[in-house]
Amino acid sequence: MPFIRMVQSFRELQMNIYEKLIALGIQLPKVAPPAAVYVPWVAAGNLLFVSGHIAKRDGSPWVGQFGTSMKVKDGAAAARSVAIDLLGTVHEALGDLNRVKRVVKLTALVNSSDTFTDHHVVANGASALFAEVFDSAGSHARSAFGVAQIPFGACIEIELIVEF
Amino acid sequence: MPFIRMVQSFRELQMNIYEKLIALGIQLPKVAPPAAVYVPWVAAGNLLFVSGHIAKRDGSPWVGQFGTSMKVKDGAAAARSVAIDLLGTVHEALGDLNRVKRVVKLTALVNSSDTFTDHHVVANGASALFAEVFDSAGSHARSAFGVAQIPFGACIEIELIVEF
Amino acid sequence: MPFIRMVQSFRELQMNIYEKLIALGIQLPKVAPPAAVYVPWVAAGNLLFVSGHIAKRDGSPWVGQFGTSMKVKDGAAAARSVAIDLLGTVHEALGDLNRVKRVVKLTALVNSSDTFTDHHVVANGASALFAEVFDSAGSHARSAFGVAQIPFGACIEIELIVEF
Repeated sequence: MPFIRMVQSFRELQMNIYEKLIALGIQLPKVAPPAAVYVPWVAAGNLLFVSGHIAKRDGSPWVGQFGTSMKVKDGAAAARSVAIDLLGTVHEALGDLNRVKRVVKLTALVNSSDTFTDHHVVANGASALFAEVFDSAGSHARSAFGVAQIPFGACIEIELIVEF
Repeated sequence: MPFIRMVQSFRELQMNIYEKLIALGIQLPKVAPPAAVYVPWVAAGNLLFVSGHIAKRDGSPWVGQFGTSMKVKDGAAAARSVAIDLLGTVHEALGDLNRVKRVVKLTALVNSSDTFTDHHVVANGASALFAEVFDSAGSHARSAFGVAQIPFGACIEIELIVEF
Repeated sequence: MPFIRMVQSFRELQMNIYEKLIALGIQLPKVAPPAAVYVPWVAAGNLLFVSGHIAKRDGSPWVGQFGTSMKVKDGAAAARSVAIDLLGTVHEALGDLNRVKRVVKLTALVNSSDTFTDHHVVANGASALFAEVFDSAGSHARSAFGVAQIPFGACIEIELIVEF
């Protein structure tokens, strides 16, 4: 590894998560109250279970189905936007994102026709963000698959398990 | 809070879960053996993982698909009935429902056409029951979404993680 | 229980997992790198979260949809092959399959038309394998349901939680 790159890596390790969010130009949203009788997260032991968050655009559900009305090239952006909302929820849950020890498991539910087979490409938009923000602590186990529909017609819903 | 309401709240806190079930007119079912080579629950540490339970009516699978053959107004009742079956399983697993520390995570798989978008309304039937029975310990993280089909054609399947 | 059967059971208990795999004629695969920016497993505390693994045949995705192009009688074999791949990943994660304390939860995502209702029969192919390999430690909680599609068009995807 070239010296300059080593120094950069070291500085990234030193950087706290909020400095990293600023560097990435990411502003955390306020946590939207769930549309129903449940809560955005529950902590049990050292695991934080985060409710399924649907994709939103300009504050409204990001409606679409991959394979019909939604293009795969827009999917990663939609998934990334959900990941940012999930970060907002984890921030509210833990008080400090630097308490995240590991992003453990991500489940990406992709609103999909029965011919669409690129759910993993869509989900990568979320996975990449966690890697950018948390480095190796952001690499996670994952399942991604096509579902028949999602509440409010959203194009993707993502749930998360985080260790803190 | 008016005094009479405070007293009621206090009595509810004191009430044990089985008194509450009686007050709600809920009778726990016997746990049906799974239709296949697995078990209804597994405990790992302080977490109880409860297998997906399908909706039943009069002992048979409650068949239907939201968006085609099943109306959303019947959905909450179906979800509530699954939640009661889940309670029966948790009772058998823990021996005593008062050992439930927290309902952690509920996943509602709704048998859904690709046009139905009210999965959250259906799932609320289960979420509301856990809130009634366990008060704040019943509020949980949740994901709800539409699946293409469910074993035996059931209209909804719900799985649960409980902390004890 | 007849004496000869008792002796057999005792010997099975004594047999380590790798001897059992040999007896079953199962060869563990090398872990394929995920098709995207995530990892095959993450351990948190005593729980190992294993990413969704898709069915493969001759190293390529095992494409098919139950209810249309795929027959239920081929389903158990597909699910069993995923279970063997999952074993390979758990082996790599823990270094030694004898460290598995319990297979906790299996989630089987079955690529399904909206008329197919035998997801549990398909999933049994995986569940049975874990019972064969780990005996009672292999009996797990499970959900199985039909999804609209799966990455690469695979006929089934399975994810796992293991306690070690």
